Amino acid sequence: MNLKPLGDRVVIQHLEAEEKTKSGIILTGAAKEKPQEAVVVAVGPGGIVDGEKVEMQVKEGDKVIYSKYAGTEVTIDKEEYVIVKQSDILAIVE
Amino acid sequence: MNLKPLGDRVVIQHLEAEEKTKSGIILTGAAKEKPQEAVVVAVGPGGIVDGEKVEMQVKEGDKVIYSKYAGTEVTIDKEEYVIVKQSDILAIVE
Amino acid sequence: MNLKPLGDRVVIQHLEAEEKTKSGIILTGAAKEKPQEAVVVAVGPGGIVDGEKVEMQVKEGDKVIYSKYAGTEVTIDKEEYVIVKQSDILAIVE
Amino acid sequence: MNLKPLGDRVVIQHLEAEEKTKSGIILTGAAKEKPQEAVVVAVGPGGIVDGEKVEMQVKEGDKVIYSKYAGTEVTIDKEEYVIVKQSDILAIVE
Amino acid sequence: MNLKPLGDRVVIQHLEAEEKTKSGIILTGAAKEKPQEAVVVAVGPGGIVDGEKVEMQVKEGDKVIYSKYAGTEVTIDKEEYVIVKQSDILAIVE
Amino acid sequence: MNLKPLGDRVVIQHLEAEEKTKSGIILTGAAKEKPQEAVVVAVGPGGIVDGEKVEMQVKEGDKVIYSKYAGTEVTIDKEEYVIVKQSDILAIVE
Amino acid sequence: MNLKPLGDRVVIQHLEAEEKTKSGIILTGAAKEKPQEAVVVAVGPGGIVDGEKVEMQVKEGDKVIYSKYAGTEVTIDKEEYVIVKQSDILAIVE
Repeated sequence: MNLKPLGDRVVIQHLEAEEKTKSGIILTGAAKEKPQEAVVVAVGPGGIVDGEKVEMQVKEGDKVIYSKYAGTEVTIDKEEYVIVKQSDILAIVE
Repeated sequence: MNLKPLGDRVVIQHLEAEEKTKSGIILTGAAKEKPQEAVVVAVGPGGIVDGEKVEMQVKEGDKVIYSKYAGTEVTIDKEEYVIVKQSDILAIVE
Repeated sequence: MNLKPLGDRVVIQHLEAEEKTKSGIILTGAAKEKPQEAVVVAVGPGGIVDGEKVEMQVKEGDKVIYSKYAGTEVTIDKEEYVIVKQSDILAIVE
Repeated sequence: MNLKPLGDRVVIQHLEAEEKTKSGIILTGAAKEKPQEAVVVAVGPGGIVDGEKVEMQVKEGDKVIYSKYAGTEVTIDKEEYVIVKQSDILAIVE
Repeated sequence: MNLKPLGDRVVIQHLEAEEKTKSGIILTGAAKEKPQEAVVVAVGPGGIVDGEKVEMQVKEGDKVIYSKYAGTEVTIDKEEYVIVKQSDILAIVE
Repeated sequence: MNLKPLGDRVVIQHLEAEEKTKSGIILTGAAKEKPQEAVVVAVGPGGIVDGEKVEMQVKEGDKVIYSKYAGTEVTIDKEEYVIVKQSDILAIVE
Repeated sequence: MNLKPLGDRVVIQHLEAEEKTKSGIILTGAAKEKPQEAVVVAVGPGGIVDGEKVEMQVKEGDKVIYSKYAGTEVTIDKEEYVIVKQSDILAIVE
């Protein structure tokens, strides 16, 4: 099952320590205490959102910091995701 | 009886497990615990909404995730629907 | 007595079961439990509203679903009406 | 004494039953129970208000329905008035 | 001491009965019960305010009605003033 | 140490009676009861702020009245300052 | 590990007294009582943010004053950072 976010939305997934996510990223134990870090699993097309042109600046696989309380949690096929607007993503962690 | 949503509004219907909806989609039991998933049953024409041009990106039959608490519930001919703005639809589930 | 709504406003009237409204629409008993359904009795001219061009998409006699708590109730000649903005009308029921 | 409203403001006066207002309108007793009906006694020039061009659509003497709680009550020469923005006027009663 | 308001601001002063204001206006006793009436003592230059062009429509000496609770009270040289935005001035009293 | 405000921000300093401020202005005792009066100590460059062109209208040394509760208090080198947006400055006192 | 802020965001770090930050700035003891002072450690690219063109005016290494309660605190590799929008930065301290 696939999630195709609309507009400027981004689907992200919290990183669990020592767990390999679907996209193949392996995370260190330190990630356990970082609830605001997540990995991008799907990116909307951007385009005109609320009358403003939005270009997407994150891509699948990016590790990101996002704004506390932002977004909507969804559970699909027993995997938990958060769907946020790109503007709720604060920074990419490299 | 038919619902013709205005502007950027979309009529959606919650999916009940093992129940065939009017549009013919058959849903698995797992859908029972996913209150934010719904199927699109009617799509407004888009156009200028609050001064901004809106193009509709969902179509009848799409399974979608929508924003908690968004929209207005209506009961028509004993069927329950939710009418939301397209911007309250977060993602299409494929 | 006539109500001429200004701008993008629409005058609607709740439908009572088995009651013939002024505009001649006869409603079934089922309408009793549908407080958000109403019939349009007068439509404003649209035009520039809050700096945005609004085209009216409903017309006298349309049965509509409108947003809970929207609008202002008025009683004129013992008839009750609700005056809403067109953007509070969610869908036309056909 | 005269009130010259600024911008898109309109001075209105509640109608008391059997009372002749300054502008000469005689009102029926039924008006007593209609607190949201009023007669327009002065109309601002319109023009650019909050960056948007506003054309005035009501005129002195119009009977209007206005939005509950809108406006500012003022007492001048022992007459009570309400000063509202034109956008708080919902409809003209004819 | 002089107050030069910025942008679309206006300095106004409440009218006390039988008291001659600095600008020479003599007020009648009736003014005592009209807390929302004031006289304009200084007018800002207008111009671009919050991105919108504002033309000043009141002038020094105008008696005005202003919006309840609007503005900031200041005491300068033991005189009390209120500094409001022009948009908080509802009407000019002539 | 120097404060260089960004955008349309202005650094102001409350005036203490009989105290010579850094910029050399000597204030009379009467200033003690005027908590909303302050002297401008640094002015931002203006320019595009929130998408609107802002021209700075105050300059270093101006005595100004500013909006109650506006701004952020900071202590630098044991001097207290308030950093406000120019739009929180109501008037210049001359 | 590196933080690359998106849009008009800026990553800042509180200054601890007598502690050398990663960017090499040595801070005096007086900094201990200044919770709103911070040093810029990463700056977003600016560009179109919420439909408005934003040019970044701070750079890595700048000491800045920022708005109380603004931003999101994050802990990365045991270092604490705050991610703010540039508009929450009030002034540069030189």
